[in-house]
Amino acid sequence: MSSLPPHPLCPLSASEIQASARLVQGAWPASVSLRFKVITLSEPPKHQLAPYLEALEKGSPSPLDRRAFVAYYIRKTDIFHEAVINLTTGTVESNIRLGPHLHGNADYDEAQMIEKIALEDPKVLAELEKLKLPEGTVVCADPWIYGSDGIDDDQRMYQVFLYMRDPANSSEPDSNHYAFPLPISPVIECTEYKVVRIDTMPTGADNTIKPPAPYQPVPANEYIPEAQELRKDLKPLRVLQPEGASFTVKPVGETGHVLKWQKWNFFIGFNQREGMVLYNVKYDGRPLFYRLSLSDMTVPYADPRHPFHKKSAFDLGDVGAGTTANNLQLGCDCLGSIQYLSGVICDDKGEPVPKENCICIHEQDAGIGWKHVNYRTGRSAVVRSRELVLQSIITVSNYEYILMFIFNQAGELTYEVRATGILSTQPLDHELNKTGVSFGTVVHPGVLACLHQHIFSLRIDPMIDGHTNQLVYSETHKMPRDPNWNAHGIGYELIEKKVEKTAGLDLDFEQNRTFKITNPNSLNPINGKPVGYKIMAPPFQKLMSDNESFNFRRAEFADHNIYVTTHCDRELFAGGWYTNQSRGGTGVRSWAERSEALTPESDIVLWVQFGINHVPRIEDFPVMPVEILKVHLKPVNFFTKNPALDVPPSEQGFNQSTLIESKKAAEGTDAGCGCESSTVSSKL
Amino acid sequence: MSSLPPHPLCPLSASEIQASARLVQGAWPASVSLRFKVITLSEPPKHQLAPYLEALEKGSPSPLDRRAFVAYYIRKTDIFHEAVINLTTGTVESNIRLGPHLHGNADYDEAQMIEKIALEDPKVLAELEKLKLPEGTVVCADPWIYGSDGIDDDQRMYQVFLYMRDPANSSEPDSNHYAFPLPISPVIECTEYKVVRIDTMPTGADNTIKPPAPYQPVPANEYIPEAQELRKDLKPLRVLQPEGASFTVKPVGETGHVLKWQKWNFFIGFNQREGMVLYNVKYDGRPLFYRLSLSDMTVPYADPRHPFHKKSAFDLGDVGAGTTANNLQLGCDCLGSIQYLSGVICDDKGEPVPKENCICIHEQDAGIGWKHVNYRTGRSAVVRSRELVLQSIITVSNYEYILMFIFNQAGELTYEVRATGILSTQPLDHELNKTGVSFGTVVHPGVLACLHQHIFSLRIDPMIDGHTNQLVYSETHKMPRDPNWNAHGIGYELIEKKVEKTAGLDLDFEQNRTFKITNPNSLNPINGKPVGYKIMAPPFQKLMSDNESFNFRRAEFADHNIYVTTHCDRELFAGGWYTNQSRGGTGVRSWAERSEALTPESDIVLWVQFGINHVPRIEDFPVMPVEILKVHLKPVNFFTKNPALDVPPSEQGFNQSTLIESKKAAEGTDAGCGCESSTVSSKL
Repeated sequence: MSSLPPHPLCPLSASEIQASARLVQGAWPASVSLRFKVITLSEPPKHQLAPYLEALEKGSPSPLDRRAFVAYYIRKTDIFHEAVINLTTGTVESNIRLGPHLHGNADYDEAQMIEKIALEDPKVLAELEKLKLPEGTVVCADPWIYGSDGIDDDQRMYQVFLYMRDPANSSEPDSNHYAFPLPISPVIECTEYKVVRIDTMPTGADNTIKPPAPYQPVPANEYIPEAQELRKDLKPLRVLQPEGASFTVKPVGETGHVLKWQKWNFFIGFNQREGMVLYNVKYDGRPLFYRLSLSDMTVPYADPRHPFHKKSAFDLGDVGAGTTANNLQLGCDCLGSIQYLSGVICDDKGEPVPKENCICIHEQDAGIGWKHVNYRTGRSAVVRSRELVLQSIITVSNYEYILMFIFNQAGELTYEVRATGILSTQPLDHELNKTGVSFGTVVHPGVLACLHQHIFSLRIDPMIDGHTNQLVYSETHKMPRDPNWNAHGIGYELIEKKVEKTAGLDLDFEQNRTFKITNPNSLNPINGKPVGYKIMAPPFQKLMSDNESFNFRRAEFADHNIYVTTHCDRELFAGGWYTNQSRGGTGVRSWAERSEALTPESDIVLWVQFGINHVPRIEDFPVMPVEILKVHLKPVNFFTKNPALDVPPSEQGFNQSTLIESKKAAEGTDAGCGCESSTVSSKL
Repeated sequence: MSSLPPHPLCPLSASEIQASARLVQGAWPASVSLRFKVITLSEPPKHQLAPYLEALEKGSPSPLDRRAFVAYYIRKTDIFHEAVINLTTGTVESNIRLGPHLHGNADYDEAQMIEKIALEDPKVLAELEKLKLPEGTVVCADPWIYGSDGIDDDQRMYQVFLYMRDPANSSEPDSNHYAFPLPISPVIECTEYKVVRIDTMPTGADNTIKPPAPYQPVPANEYIPEAQELRKDLKPLRVLQPEGASFTVKPVGETGHVLKWQKWNFFIGFNQREGMVLYNVKYDGRPLFYRLSLSDMTVPYADPRHPFHKKSAFDLGDVGAGTTANNLQLGCDCLGSIQYLSGVICDDKGEPVPKENCICIHEQDAGIGWKHVNYRTGRSAVVRSRELVLQSIITVSNYEYILMFIFNQAGELTYEVRATGILSTQPLDHELNKTGVSFGTVVHPGVLACLHQHIFSLRIDPMIDGHTNQLVYSETHKMPRDPNWNAHGIGYELIEKKVEKTAGLDLDFEQNRTFKITNPNSLNPINGKPVGYKIMAPPFQKLMSDNESFNFRRAEFADHNIYVTTHCDRELFAGGWYTNQSRGGTGVRSWAERSEALTPESDIVLWVQFGINHVPRIEDFPVMPVEILKVHLKPVNFFTKNPALDVPPSEQGFNQSTLIESKKAAEGTDAGCGCESSTVSSKL
């Protein structure tokens, strides 16, 4: 173990994870077996860390104690604890039993076990028997988080959805089983891990539960390349950086990294729950963001019928963006000159599990950054926009999210999400194939993809030129007609308002409402405005579950575009610390309801929501083309001019593009309209 | 001249332009001198062209007559005509005098003349004298369209805004004169081209016109690279296509082109007003769009004071996206393997003017297109998204628009606009530098950039699987609570409605309202839904001028997100055919007010509006980082599965990416937090 502590933001190392597990185990008799859920860095409190980071720039501040946060069960019980371990002193600082309605997240070891239990249970097999599946059928199980509804759900449970592989190709382990959903669904409890119930699904347009009907053959619908006739006319496109990349990644301790690129500078962390976390983000030495991460996500489904109404996942809190991060492959998940970072999480025994290549870093060209042509002289001044991308991709059972922080040379930071992967499907009676139902789309014969929402919460702990930040919003309003001032009825103006209390707030495009984080203690030297960054988030339809529903109570962030709260160290996750089968009251809506007055000294935190109401298209199956969402953070009166003014001009010597020579127009008979046999004459 | 006619959609060739001018001139006595404004292709009427294009795929239909549209003045008069020339028969088919309130567009020859007149007029020079500008000052003139307000504006006029070059660098022709706006503004009429008035501008916070005050020195604010200390740490990033590009451009006649790429196929046109126009867009042989173009744009400013209230440009109708198209340079405006297309417009004498390299075509990588990882086997299936870009860039005096049609492999088409260039500035009293005004932003000492809007109208003439298209919209609505059906309050459903009449319609993100073009005569073979394409446009604040204003009357498209009308051949431009000093009543609002019933046989046209209310940031000066707007057209139940399923998998052999090796963590003293002098210990 460490003799000298690493940087206080370094993620836990493998040895720190092991040490934490040993210290927790040491708090119990040796006969007590523990199932670990989380062993992760417990970040120093802000009142210690913020001054430490400032002092670090000037010298060697006194080190801060390293701490681990641990959540665990006592095996074969529902006894759930969280503990804080001081790794510097080697002590258990707290160890608290939680409950009764707080539950731990899913983990891979458990999910694999659940699959096995579901598929081997005799009662399940008996139900499957009734479906008269073809000889040699392979059944697959997707364990789902048991979205709570307050009915008989005190216990921690899994709802398991069953599918089968294409019976004509059942030896193919990557056959798309989502094209073959089955109508029975076992429920498994998590103390003894027994099947407690087998739900039969409604498969018609109403609530009726029919006795299982024999399997009716459908074609396969595969996504793997060998099942396709692939396009043959796509030529290679390669990104070459002959002098290497423009960024440098400096390792810090065993697990931390500091990245520098085009005046940007920040610390990269990684944890089980949020995946990538960025800290201490600065531009040209000026502080911008103390901490940035995707904080939460809710994915509720539209089908009101049991058991589908419980499909409501919180993929970060229920599973973890670190847990589910892909091992990214060179030349497959990114293009160009790529650097990979790896992380480490724990398994259920408290042993370290490496997450290889869970973050990739590369530059990309983003088209023209700015341009002006002086039409008098014909001189063109143009620069290209180079971007730096930090990407993680998570696979949550059927579905993928591509998660990116993107930086550019104009001082802009973008958080981008690409939604892809496979729709979670359910069986539908074949007589409904052509008529459908109002809460889903038929994506394959007998296969329904239900409407659902993805609502994300990006947490922004700002430090725009320091920590005295406030949230303001501007709107543009029409000026009233006035014969002296606005005689032609075309005048309009900017109205700016401070947000005075912690609250949930909404966009209003009809008013051009724009939220900005400003620092009233740092004024722009040219125009005297407080320096700021604006938040540009796309609109989305708020949570579709009603205000009395468990979905609404649990997804405390899903009802407003922006929440503003004051900083509390433990308030990191918009839906609360424990989202699995949560009951609400522990997330950002509750924190905002403290209605605290906001002053520049309040230390605000912003929670920016965005998402899609996914009405599936048949084009989204068997795997969906990416749907792209972006949140931009852009400087407003933070600099004194365009910060990308000093980007070198876009020139052929640097870019080395290739000219494709135009073909001459064919004479006479071969100038058809894109059809080889056409014969439009074109002799001129 | 042509003996055999080219394809009916080929833009006019140089010789056709000359022939058209000669035929028009031939209708007048030789002593009558003409000033040509437009000589452009008059497209065949749809009832002829649509069947022709269909017949062309099967063989050689009878050729259609070639026609030119000509707009011109009799020099030294306000006599304005439009004529239609039949180039096939060599006859003037119509020649109509227009007026009194219809005016021709600006052209380069005229704009240059206006600049000269403004700068040489003795009355203007006398006013400039009063400003006591430094010795050797070079004054620049920006001629502006005289946005009409109905007051003394029957005549066609220009409002000229004056600036000066940095006095310390006045020999630099590319000095940014927008950092030195001057407070006087000549107005020039367009019959005799005389200065009819010199406006003195209000430069304070109110309406007061003060006598011209002596010039007060300010620093320069240049955008040209030699005025910057350029970044030195940006490494080259090159795009290499060793086997060439995946698209082919087939010349058709002298001026037309058919492009094929990844199952897409379309005809590319170019004209003086719209610039790029795409026709007959098909995917995999299935018709999608009959005609696509940017149809109009309005740019009204917020300052209610004379003469600023008349800043309201319609850059396409008042000048032309073809006229202002940049000559794109290899390796500067695009990256990779680039093909250029050139166009031809006319000058004021009716002679052809080549527009070299006014369109560039290239492919780009757009990140991951889709991905799924089977977590059971660990197998990843991933494809990259390749895009095809057709780009034009227009310079309208101070400002640039980058205009792109982007196609991808998932059957999606995107129209992208990037707004860049230089803000149009005006002088502001120095005592207001730090306090500002509510309708603008101080971007430099003594320089105000006024709030303004950019509202665009994209015209979509659809043919989704044929011409029997209709406009529908879907919304998602919460299901009411019901103990039997929606007991948990989480159910919601899709509601779909047909648009029954021509109308202006709005987005509603609270309802997830989504507009779709569908074909009720072509049903999806799997789920029975009418095939369709949805329109995904970003929200924007509608026109800020009030409903009685000239801005509102003239910008007939700027008050709704979408207009739907029935097709009429002459209804191509959302703000009407002649926007310069227009008075309204001739655009899409008026056409929609016909309230025609819509049936699948109605032949609908869609007008999609989008834009920004630009509240200038100081970061937008002296040249603004691109602001990006995108309109997506995406298939909905048009295919039977993800159309990009057959894209070859993303593999290192094809992509040839480069691994950047991670550095080992530094031991001991060199693992600082991004600061070379820091000394965090990190020995573990």
